[in-house]
Amino acid sequence: MDSIISSIKGQQRVVIENISPQLEAGRFVVKAFVGDVIRVEADIFLDGHDLLSANLLYKFSKDNKWISVPMTFTKNDHYEAYFTVLDNGFYFYTIESWVNQAASWEHEMVMKTKDGQHVNVELMVGANILETMVKIATKEDKPELKSYAKLFRDNKHYDEAVAFANSPQMHQWIHQYPDKQHVTIHKELKIWVDRERAAFSSWYSMFPRSASSEYNKHGTFKDVEANVLPRMKSLGFDVLYIPPIHPIGMQFRKGKNNSTTCSGGEPGVPYGIGSELGGHTAIHPELGTLNDLKHLVTTCKSMGIELAMDLAIQCSPDHPWAKEHPEWFKIRPDGTIQYAENPPKKYQDIYPLNFESENWQGLWQELKHVMMTWAEWGVRIIRVDNPHTKAFSFWEWVIPEVQAEYPDMIFLAEAFTKPLVMEQLAKLGYTQSYTYFTWRNSKRDLIAYMNELNGQSAYMRPNFWPNTHDILPYSLQGGTEPMFLIRYFIAATLSANYGIFGPFYEYMINEANPGKEEYKNSEKYEIRHWDWNMENKLTHIIRMTNKARVENTALQRTNNITFCDIQNDNILAYLKTAWNGNRILAIVNLDPYNTQGGYVRIPLNLIGKHTDEEYIVHDLLTEAKYFWRGEFNAIELNPQLMPMHLFRIEDL
Amino acid sequence: MDSIISSIKGQQRVVIENISPQLEAGRFVVKAFVGDVIRVEADIFLDGHDLLSANLLYKFSKDNKWISVPMTFTKNDHYEAYFTVLDNGFYFYTIESWVNQAASWEHEMVMKTKDGQHVNVELMVGANILETMVKIATKEDKPELKSYAKLFRDNKHYDEAVAFANSPQMHQWIHQYPDKQHVTIHKELKIWVDRERAAFSSWYSMFPRSASSEYNKHGTFKDVEANVLPRMKSLGFDVLYIPPIHPIGMQFRKGKNNSTTCSGGEPGVPYGIGSELGGHTAIHPELGTLNDLKHLVTTCKSMGIELAMDLAIQCSPDHPWAKEHPEWFKIRPDGTIQYAENPPKKYQDIYPLNFESENWQGLWQELKHVMMTWAEWGVRIIRVDNPHTKAFSFWEWVIPEVQAEYPDMIFLAEAFTKPLVMEQLAKLGYTQSYTYFTWRNSKRDLIAYMNELNGQSAYMRPNFWPNTHDILPYSLQGGTEPMFLIRYFIAATLSANYGIFGPFYEYMINEANPGKEEYKNSEKYEIRHWDWNMENKLTHIIRMTNKARVENTALQRTNNITFCDIQNDNILAYLKTAWNGNRILAIVNLDPYNTQGGYVRIPLNLIGKHTDEEYIVHDLLTEAKYFWRGEFNAIELNPQLMPMHLFRIEDL
Repeated sequence: MDSIISSIKGQQRVVIENISPQLEAGRFVVKAFVGDVIRVEADIFLDGHDLLSANLLYKFSKDNKWISVPMTFTKNDHYEAYFTVLDNGFYFYTIESWVNQAASWEHEMVMKTKDGQHVNVELMVGANILETMVKIATKEDKPELKSYAKLFRDNKHYDEAVAFANSPQMHQWIHQYPDKQHVTIHKELKIWVDRERAAFSSWYSMFPRSASSEYNKHGTFKDVEANVLPRMKSLGFDVLYIPPIHPIGMQFRKGKNNSTTCSGGEPGVPYGIGSELGGHTAIHPELGTLNDLKHLVTTCKSMGIELAMDLAIQCSPDHPWAKEHPEWFKIRPDGTIQYAENPPKKYQDIYPLNFESENWQGLWQELKHVMMTWAEWGVRIIRVDNPHTKAFSFWEWVIPEVQAEYPDMIFLAEAFTKPLVMEQLAKLGYTQSYTYFTWRNSKRDLIAYMNELNGQSAYMRPNFWPNTHDILPYSLQGGTEPMFLIRYFIAATLSANYGIFGPFYEYMINEANPGKEEYKNSEKYEIRHWDWNMENKLTHIIRMTNKARVENTALQRTNNITFCDIQNDNILAYLKTAWNGNRILAIVNLDPYNTQGGYVRIPLNLIGKHTDEEYIVHDLLTEAKYFWRGEFNAIELNPQLMPMHLFRIEDL
Repeated sequence: MDSIISSIKGQQRVVIENISPQLEAGRFVVKAFVGDVIRVEADIFLDGHDLLSANLLYKFSKDNKWISVPMTFTKNDHYEAYFTVLDNGFYFYTIESWVNQAASWEHEMVMKTKDGQHVNVELMVGANILETMVKIATKEDKPELKSYAKLFRDNKHYDEAVAFANSPQMHQWIHQYPDKQHVTIHKELKIWVDRERAAFSSWYSMFPRSASSEYNKHGTFKDVEANVLPRMKSLGFDVLYIPPIHPIGMQFRKGKNNSTTCSGGEPGVPYGIGSELGGHTAIHPELGTLNDLKHLVTTCKSMGIELAMDLAIQCSPDHPWAKEHPEWFKIRPDGTIQYAENPPKKYQDIYPLNFESENWQGLWQELKHVMMTWAEWGVRIIRVDNPHTKAFSFWEWVIPEVQAEYPDMIFLAEAFTKPLVMEQLAKLGYTQSYTYFTWRNSKRDLIAYMNELNGQSAYMRPNFWPNTHDILPYSLQGGTEPMFLIRYFIAATLSANYGIFGPFYEYMINEANPGKEEYKNSEKYEIRHWDWNMENKLTHIIRMTNKARVENTALQRTNNITFCDIQNDNILAYLKTAWNGNRILAIVNLDPYNTQGGYVRIPLNLIGKHTDEEYIVHDLLTEAKYFWRGEFNAIELNPQLMPMHLFRIEDL
């Protein structure tokens, strides 16, 4: 028992509780973006009637010194303060609070003086307070503090002393020179701050081997530079995401449409990683050299585009790791390496890594080495394939390890799985996450899902994809132009991060393998050929939407959305607002066949208008402008003409 | 970095999160009552597609061995299991979970066998699994496990081996002999389990010095035994709470109605604790001797009543601590001890203790000594006066210290202060708490407050008081009989713990000092005289209500309440249900002047009735019985006759 009491700081009377932001009592790190203003709140109280003071303390991880911000009382023992995160990396923050005996004394002096009480003893207490201040005061203030302490103690000029005890100068000193005896300091919390691209990005995904202008020719990084980057630039995309670019294995290589037989000359699946030419740090020779890749990275950069590489933690049977580190795999009792299975299905072309390996540390270090190697090549975005089939503790370790050296590294989690697992990956450090958006189609589902995602915005940043190279959703199968316009548009305006798999998307290809949500003749298994200059109505809308995204701050965040009432289940209307006054109102007809209309109700308080005020809604897709007034305004959308408005709200 | 990785259990793949019950990530201890069934839930998941198993582990603090209960999957990675707390004290609980490789193997075997695949290698895996089981199997099972392992490995009787791999016996073994390699174990959590009186108690508060049958005579413990206990027994109360019984100081002793002047012979305030005769462990001689007190405790016990003593941590200037431990007080610069103040008011008869004392450890130990002394006298309930003006860390330390020796000790917090402070005291260990009930009068306020309290039921147990010796609320000032009936009745039926300050309450005394919520001629400052046999309509209702409380389980808990719709803002109707099928429906007219009525809507699902089913509502106050049918039933309540029904719902 005596050991318990000796571990207690019994004189600490202030309690600091319920700090926000905070994720599960500090178990996980809250996330923010460079430039964010972080509002720190807490419940702070103590026993009895003494007054307390509290400071928010924060620092960038690379700085030594805490910066202190006085916290403001709001109500019910609740306090708040703000700080701005200006750098990419970790910030630390905490709260300190102490019994402000001097402020309590000041309050008592006021009450007693008003009451006409004799306060001689109280002045002596005041003298003690001033003498304590002397220890931390500036050189300039020290003599004055000492002389007032003497005035208080001497009892020679009582009226003068009482007057000074109630003076603004005394009040100022009390707050300038706090006596933090028995201060309570909360445990440190952390915020991870990402660069802007983590918040706002427009992804274009394609297979480099299909980038050639010539038929029947394996595309190269050079072809990507020549054909793909200009198209991306013209359409307004800023992240180029490519599937694995490593040597492809030969054993059990798959043919067209995932056939288990493969004719000679078929290119194989880029996810069958590794051959005698190397593994995850080698380049597939038909794509070019490592120098070609680095050149691609540089050219991208010069055009304001970033290259996102694809990390698939799995091997073909020909991967060097299978020979050099068989202990990283599951070994079957017959001595062979266990291939991937989803019984009764077998995937003999793929060896999964075994995260229960006795040499898991070696495996983790090697995987980190892969990412660090890519980072040395200039890559700062990694899309991770199926992260939910690798151990959580690995991600919790490796993401901060990589970001310790490259804080600008962005990780996108390609996990389409159970909600808690997707959330866990985000909590463990993933910068962005794929979502269920691909399968959310109705107004009701879209609103519910956006509200769910926004409840997770402290740790999970959605990236919306209407299609991917793995997924042609049922909603697009057999879809016509309006459907492709609609799905594209809502992805790009609901979420600040979105992407499409092209040119399949722009070509509006809607043919699937029967009964499955996957492309027929998918590029995963064969080389396709495209006209990289193709233009149609959809590419026009993409260009205009991406332009609007860049020019309108409100479209550069995801959780700033308010859905607007409209008595039509086919029309989705949403307002996005930004700190700088930018206001975007998107209205979409979700019905690709019929004209739909109604009266959309504008939340006037959010756009800063009163009931009878007129304002302009300026369609950024068509440049049309309309005068609207007040709360309810009529709209009608014919999907064959234009299924959406992208209005900027402008003042008259 | 290598030091980070070496601290990780990298092969642990299972994640256990979001355990409930749990209070702020284990910062505080959840509370329960003896006999409660604790439902433990958690989110449990791992990467990939392997199966997992999970156990709830729990133990009573004095036991060494964990008891293990398999957890059941509910949905979305959510698992649950139950345990019953049978003893007063701490229980520990946690969850263990591991990848169930054997169950995954079994699942694969089923799929592959159905598919007609050759499973020779899989049988060898099975042999390994059986051999691992041998290590933990019972002596009886070992030989059989070994022989099946041989069958699997031998490859001589393939069909027999495959059949056994898919057999119920194999399935049973897989769950009987789990291989918990790389098991994840959550950090231990604690539940504090109180005895039944903590959940269900009926308090009667009075001043022993007013217990005498003779006018102008100082009452004694003997008088309490003779006059008060029989009355309590007759009315059905089971806790006798008395204000401090220690010697009362002389310096600055207060007179009648809190006068700062005190005539000779005035008895003083029991909260002015301490004189040359002793302090918190001494007995005021006019009440009797320590032996008399012990006798009172014993007599109480024999009548099913418990004595609650009052801990007021403050001293009169004559308290021995003022001389022996001046360092426990705040010393003013003139060398005197600081008396209590609420500037400009002075309370010179009271010295508060200083919890920032440099000798705080000595102070804490002495206060613990006071409580342990009372416990030795047989006292098992302590009502703490103004706990919110003493350091939180003291309570967090002292309550478990006392309960380590006396787990049956009940602490009631008399804190009428800010909501977060009241909650904090409950979280730190207080068994029961005074509440704002005293000032919650309207239907809307009462419902909102009950819902708020029930949201805190994991740590805060309300004790409802319509009056106290400190408080005559405005609602009762000038109140007539119906008002006293109503306020009594809702206290005793909304909350399982309640109390009244008598005989002021039964006498329906409604005279206050003007503008204040305090009794005129309060017993705090003078001795009063009562007829301890007085009976009236209110005492009849008290007797019937307390009887109903004892006989109906539904009235013995607080958070089992459902408010019933009724289209009348003056009528409060609530259903309380218990695990044993007991159902109580209370209906009260909150308007003390006018008859009010309406159709009360009964939640049929909660009483187990269908739309057209008849049932009996049996008024436990009047013994009247009515036949009701279905959802809506008419009631009308005349406050002059009887402002409430206390129905037990009974089957036909």
